[in-house]
Amino acid sequence: MLKNRFMKRTNEEKKLLQALGNNIRKAREARGISQEQFAMKAGFSRSYFTEIETGKRNISILNFMKILKGLDASPSDIIDFLKK
Amino acid sequence: MLKNRFMKRTNEEKKLLQALGNNIRKAREARGISQEQFAMKAGFSRSYFTEIETGKRNISILNFMKILKGLDASPSDIIDFLKK
Repeated sequence: MLKNRFMKRTNEEKKLLQALGNNIRKAREARGISQEQFAMKAGFSRSYFTEIETGKRNISILNFMKILKGLDASPSDIIDFLKK
Repeated sequence: MLKNRFMKRTNEEKKLLQALGNNIRKAREARGISQEQFAMKAGFSRSYFTEIETGKRNISILNFMKILKGLDASPSDIIDFLKK
């Protein structure tokens, strides 16, 4: 089960992570918070959070919840691209 | 950043994962699909999926999306316990 960040992802998975990162960035910017401020607030390093926003990280659901809490956003705000 | 499944989780994290697993189980049962059927459909092993439903796994966001897709559920259906 061990996976590392260099594991091959399908193109669809890459797109999903990029769409997710984009929505996180948009929600953060709409709230007028810098990456650095938000990373600190949510308990991430700045570099890790940058990788989340650029879609390079397949984050865990607990970290996803931390982000929602930090943004005071609902799940659908961030993964609305899943809607049909 | 390497983490394994035996990593200590806080009580709050355990509760979040249990609530998530519960909602996944309820949504699956409401659709009349067995654990085994659903695991196969979504591309998980049965034992891994059982651990998700019992809140033992901190799944990745990509696996969470696979579950939503498999259940044809919206993100808020499954993590509605985050709402205030």
